[in-house]
Amino acid sequence: MKIAIVGSGALGLYYGALLQRGGQDIHFLLRRDYDVVSRNGLKIFSINGDFELPTIQGYLRTEDIGPVDLVLLGLKTFSNNMLYELISPLIGDETQILTLQNGLGNEEALADQFGGERIIGGVAFLCSNRGQPGEVHHLGAGRITIGEYLRIDKERLEKLASVFNHCGIDCRMTDDIKKARWEKLVWNIPFNGLCALLMQPVDRLLAASHTRCLIREIMTEVIRAANTQEIDTPIHEEYAEEMLLFTDNMGVYKPSMLIDREEGRPMETTAIFRKPLEFARKQGYAMPRVEMLVTLLEQVVF
Amino acid sequence: MKIAIVGSGALGLYYGALLQRGGQDIHFLLRRDYDVVSRNGLKIFSINGDFELPTIQGYLRTEDIGPVDLVLLGLKTFSNNMLYELISPLIGDETQILTLQNGLGNEEALADQFGGERIIGGVAFLCSNRGQPGEVHHLGAGRITIGEYLRIDKERLEKLASVFNHCGIDCRMTDDIKKARWEKLVWNIPFNGLCALLMQPVDRLLAASHTRCLIREIMTEVIRAANTQEIDTPIHEEYAEEMLLFTDNMGVYKPSMLIDREEGRPMETTAIFRKPLEFARKQGYAMPRVEMLVTLLEQVVF
Repeated sequence: MKIAIVGSGALGLYYGALLQRGGQDIHFLLRRDYDVVSRNGLKIFSINGDFELPTIQGYLRTEDIGPVDLVLLGLKTFSNNMLYELISPLIGDETQILTLQNGLGNEEALADQFGGERIIGGVAFLCSNRGQPGEVHHLGAGRITIGEYLRIDKERLEKLASVFNHCGIDCRMTDDIKKARWEKLVWNIPFNGLCALLMQPVDRLLAASHTRCLIREIMTEVIRAANTQEIDTPIHEEYAEEMLLFTDNMGVYKPSMLIDREEGRPMETTAIFRKPLEFARKQGYAMPRVEMLVTLLEQVVF
Repeated sequence: MKIAIVGSGALGLYYGALLQRGGQDIHFLLRRDYDVVSRNGLKIFSINGDFELPTIQGYLRTEDIGPVDLVLLGLKTFSNNMLYELISPLIGDETQILTLQNGLGNEEALADQFGGERIIGGVAFLCSNRGQPGEVHHLGAGRITIGEYLRIDKERLEKLASVFNHCGIDCRMTDDIKKARWEKLVWNIPFNGLCALLMQPVDRLLAASHTRCLIREIMTEVIRAANTQEIDTPIHEEYAEEMLLFTDNMGVYKPSMLIDREEGRPMETTAIFRKPLEFARKQGYAMPRVEMLVTLLEQVVF
């Protein structure tokens, strides 16, 4: 498959590297790492074993890549206003777009611009950070769950999942990508939000009983908001406890939003907080803690 | 009246100075400012007019003051474990204790140790900061509302209020000091909490619509918690809006808890947050935003 990686942060570089190592034809759109990666390739330091790609195909403009079979979108959502310009040159008749971006509203935005039939939603549980230019650190997890936006061609989805799994990416399929997105939000909202606000890694928040309790309460708000929509089956409230235990294993992990704040980048507050709040409000459901969290977070930045 | 000022922070020094200027016999228990104040006296820079007290009676131990008519208590509540030792030497048969401390539980703690009949609760709305040793900056407001803990001797209370008013302190009386305390909490909980958490003065929080709305929601939680108790008349919900407008006039004011955090002192989270939360919980009333606020605040410190 000819695949363009758009948004070569820790996530895009990591999955792109696995796909290239697995024999796919990978084209990376690069910015910060263009010079180093074009010259020296890519080094992946992974809990599953380190590996190196001495040469990669790197680009500064998607016009130079041309139409592909798959666009793998890992761009931060605060750059979504650039999507049309970035992706248009990559689109051919059969091109699919897989968005692994955080939060809500990404499939909808892509469907509006490129047609819903191409769009595949994906949710990644991946702990990874960028190191020096040309280096990615994979610290834990890595599973992707993918689902079609319009649920029209399951065979195509199975083919894609098979390519990913063949390349060593644990890729599951779902009929209900909306539910998978909300499940990810159950993690993202408390941990990205609280870690970025307090400038503390996940283990500090899990160690104190009051903050651990607050995380569980925030998760419960998100689960209940999710369950007000037409998802095939509700998210069980025990999912909050599962996520807490899952995160206990991450050690001193810093969520992406904390790193964004530390490095002075914008934070993905719209996709991760404001869109879910807007959805819940339309359903008549209030999320006081989630609303307070994003309000505080926006206030420390602006 | 022979009056001991215990807790000579911005509040104790300011009211003590006004009482001394008005002719009362004032004895300051000092710590940080002892040397400078004993030598050079006290300078008050006030929106009502600056004044100076070239000599004051300063002490390092209350044993050296001896029994007084009134103890004016302005100590931070995190030092309440020292109360018995500090106040005992000041107590004579007729000694009254007026606590102007923040939060809940102060009258009760004093009544347990010194007898409820002596105890007068007071709530001060005062914007003041300490400057250099020997200097106090009075930035705004200053009214005190006082009420007897046991409501047994209104005449004595009137006499005290008359002394204060005579010295230029706007001093009102209330039959319901519990209500006055909760009214003060309506201000203290959002502004002390949010300013200390975000390290921003009040005007920054009032200027942004999301934080202004959050402040109002927190105030509403506190008002509703207050109204679950037996106070003579409930606090009206419009009180929140009044407090917002009152605070608009304060400009870049930094609440005491923000200054405590900036200067590395403990914050009064128990009296201002945990006691009201405990009370509300006993009444079966939840304050999710207040609980979240103190949880975040404690987490940035410990």
